[in-house]
Amino acid sequence: MNHLISTRDVSKAEISNILKTAEEMEKLLEEKKPCEFMKGKLLATLFYEPSTRTRLSFETAVKRLGGNVIGFTDAKSTSVTKGETLRDTISVIGGYADLIVIRHPYEGASRLASECSKIPVINAGDGSNQHPTQTLLDLYTIKREIGKIDKLNIAFVGDLKYGRTVHSLCQALSLFDDVNIRLISPKELKMPQEIIEDIKSKVNLEEMEEMDLEEIDCIYMTRIQKERFPDPNEYHKVKGIYKLTKSQVENKKVIVMHPLPRVDEIEQDMDLLEQSVYFKQSFYGIPVRMAILKLLYESNNQ
Amino acid sequence: MNHLISTRDVSKAEISNILKTAEEMEKLLEEKKPCEFMKGKLLATLFYEPSTRTRLSFETAVKRLGGNVIGFTDAKSTSVTKGETLRDTISVIGGYADLIVIRHPYEGASRLASECSKIPVINAGDGSNQHPTQTLLDLYTIKREIGKIDKLNIAFVGDLKYGRTVHSLCQALSLFDDVNIRLISPKELKMPQEIIEDIKSKVNLEEMEEMDLEEIDCIYMTRIQKERFPDPNEYHKVKGIYKLTKSQVENKKVIVMHPLPRVDEIEQDMDLLEQSVYFKQSFYGIPVRMAILKLLYESNNQ
Amino acid sequence: MNHLISTRDVSKAEISNILKTAEEMEKLLEEKKPCEFMKGKLLATLFYEPSTRTRLSFETAVKRLGGNVIGFTDAKSTSVTKGETLRDTISVIGGYADLIVIRHPYEGASRLASECSKIPVINAGDGSNQHPTQTLLDLYTIKREIGKIDKLNIAFVGDLKYGRTVHSLCQALSLFDDVNIRLISPKELKMPQEIIEDIKSKVNLEEMEEMDLEEIDCIYMTRIQKERFPDPNEYHKVKGIYKLTKSQVENKKVIVMHPLPRVDEIEQDMDLLEQSVYFKQSFYGIPVRMAILKLLYESNNQ
Repeated sequence: MNHLISTRDVSKAEISNILKTAEEMEKLLEEKKPCEFMKGKLLATLFYEPSTRTRLSFETAVKRLGGNVIGFTDAKSTSVTKGETLRDTISVIGGYADLIVIRHPYEGASRLASECSKIPVINAGDGSNQHPTQTLLDLYTIKREIGKIDKLNIAFVGDLKYGRTVHSLCQALSLFDDVNIRLISPKELKMPQEIIEDIKSKVNLEEMEEMDLEEIDCIYMTRIQKERFPDPNEYHKVKGIYKLTKSQVENKKVIVMHPLPRVDEIEQDMDLLEQSVYFKQSFYGIPVRMAILKLLYESNNQ
Repeated sequence: MNHLISTRDVSKAEISNILKTAEEMEKLLEEKKPCEFMKGKLLATLFYEPSTRTRLSFETAVKRLGGNVIGFTDAKSTSVTKGETLRDTISVIGGYADLIVIRHPYEGASRLASECSKIPVINAGDGSNQHPTQTLLDLYTIKREIGKIDKLNIAFVGDLKYGRTVHSLCQALSLFDDVNIRLISPKELKMPQEIIEDIKSKVNLEEMEEMDLEEIDCIYMTRIQKERFPDPNEYHKVKGIYKLTKSQVENKKVIVMHPLPRVDEIEQDMDLLEQSVYFKQSFYGIPVRMAILKLLYESNNQ
Repeated sequence: MNHLISTRDVSKAEISNILKTAEEMEKLLEEKKPCEFMKGKLLATLFYEPSTRTRLSFETAVKRLGGNVIGFTDAKSTSVTKGETLRDTISVIGGYADLIVIRHPYEGASRLASECSKIPVINAGDGSNQHPTQTLLDLYTIKREIGKIDKLNIAFVGDLKYGRTVHSLCQALSLFDDVNIRLISPKELKMPQEIIEDIKSKVNLEEMEEMDLEEIDCIYMTRIQKERFPDPNEYHKVKGIYKLTKSQVENKKVIVMHPLPRVDEIEQDMDLLEQSVYFKQSFYGIPVRMAILKLLYESNNQ
């Protein structure tokens, strides 16, 4: 693995290696001892589109590994405004840093960056396309909290149309055995047909509008993302349509995940339930990103 | 001490401990040897309102301790814009960092943050309310430059109405013995009555308009803060009303403090006088913030 | 050397010392071992005007030396907006950091900063005036790629009027022996007469409009900087006037330099030619800035 651009490029064996390394990283964090694996090393965080949460989690990961960061948080004051191509920017940054994390508003920008980079590139979101580290931390959360990914019964609830998180995770789950996926959404926000086509032969799929959570091990809630709707009226038709409440999960063997930020789809009084693992999931982003940084750095510096 | 939200929460014994630790930190800085106390540790600087000076001094403090920083400098590109609550942001950041510094435009935001945080929270200013690390560095400056805080004769000059720095320092001084406070301001900028009520039984208070500096050990000048005036005409009535000049302090045993930035209330030719300690005071912010970070980190990781 | 404000302040012996130290720094980078020379030390990056590329290269340099950074990327949220003078800002930062890098829109701002600073100040661009670290990395590139600077035959091509990079490099080259400079530009973008007056007795100068590259060792291409033209029509008259193509350099003993970013003055298919050293040149900015930081820090802490 030289770059991490799309979950589609990652094999089951590579996922397994990342998750195993993430467990080691989590132990390292627990021990609270400084790590020097990336001492003197630099991660370039090129955010052509702001995303504070993602940026902070990558910065945390590399700093916990003993490294440091250079970067920018939006493209306004960069050489892009002087007409520089992405290709040239990547060539310059390749002379400064050891690894690149890139977030870009255009689909395919991260792939292009990786093709002209001599140092590893990690995609931290390119438009509505891919955000592979989110998928890997989701898989890690399932493995850590349930113990396995095979034979999972998972329900995705909410916006299954615009949520790239859901698309990528479904595709990644299709690499595992006997996974049952229940897709719960209003008609307007159904999973796109091309994703369904892609995975339907590899997983068991059900689609429904009603929020039926029977026989489910993992509820994956999503925010209805106002900012993705071309028409605000469409947003108002579906906002607040699904709300998870205490009574739906209490005394059940189930975990509740959410990529965060949430708005009102999970009530705040659920936060203390042991079933609610969404803040843990957010924390797991750190060891998972540490693992990815470590593995990519190693494979580029053998 | 688990958090530092308001100087009102801090006892005289705790102040004394912070000032003592700050002296150790100052020695450490003088020796210019790298410190590893916070090696591998992360301070999250959550600035929901920009404040470059305060941010830089906290960043300096944690980096001088061998730690590092993650954070944002304004709230525009954070999950707040997607409807996330402060509570959720704090829960997420609690999984990333070891300590939080927060600056927020709303009074009480820092308190709220501390109540839902599992890692220590330091208030770096919440609206016109509190900015406790400024108060502690002011106390440290007095102790370092005069030798003691008890029996202090201090004059506050200028904007005593909007300046939260002055309010907090007066309250903190009321914990010490035999402190005499002279409040010098135009009628329009008098100290608010509730602060006077709060401290008048514990310190000796005088109020006046004239800039009488007789028998004063410490002159605490303040900037008339244009940006706090609801009405610009009111600002123009009082701007430039007090100016400290060389002749008022030369050959006197007195120190001149100022929270900075200054505009014209202290003439530039005073900068080289040994009485002028305002740049030292600004420097003392570093060892004091190092002390606070160290003590909070220790108390949370015993 | 206490500060680095203008290439005019730097003697030939100092240049030679910087280039020698840069070579050591380059070896250090190649070995990929963490360096601790600036461990625990802080560089303040005061960017009163945004410049991502320059900022990132200084941050990379100090972090590769084991140090860290505090700073701001534009002046909007600083105390400047409260009326603070540059002098006061520098005094405060002098209590926080070990070295200052300053970029400012006004000519002379960096000089002023150095005059009131107790820690070393490096000019990273003051208006259209000076940007000495660019000049030093240009000299380093020539020395590394050609082997010597004396007896150089260099052609500057493009905007020789607004490009401060070209002005400074010409002045610096005039310190060396037997340098031949060919100035190639449209009439509208000729080298200013005062620079010509300054160097004409020390180097051999030719001026021409045609892009004649015969007997040249080093082609220094420049971007026609749209943003410097007071009148957009003037820009459109000259844009795209010079384009370097493969056929002009293939099979010749010549290097092609460019301060970057480029737009269309060098075709992309030239990037893989060994003559094209502009990305190397950008990389050389790191060891050169490391050398400058190291030498200034040492001279201030003997």
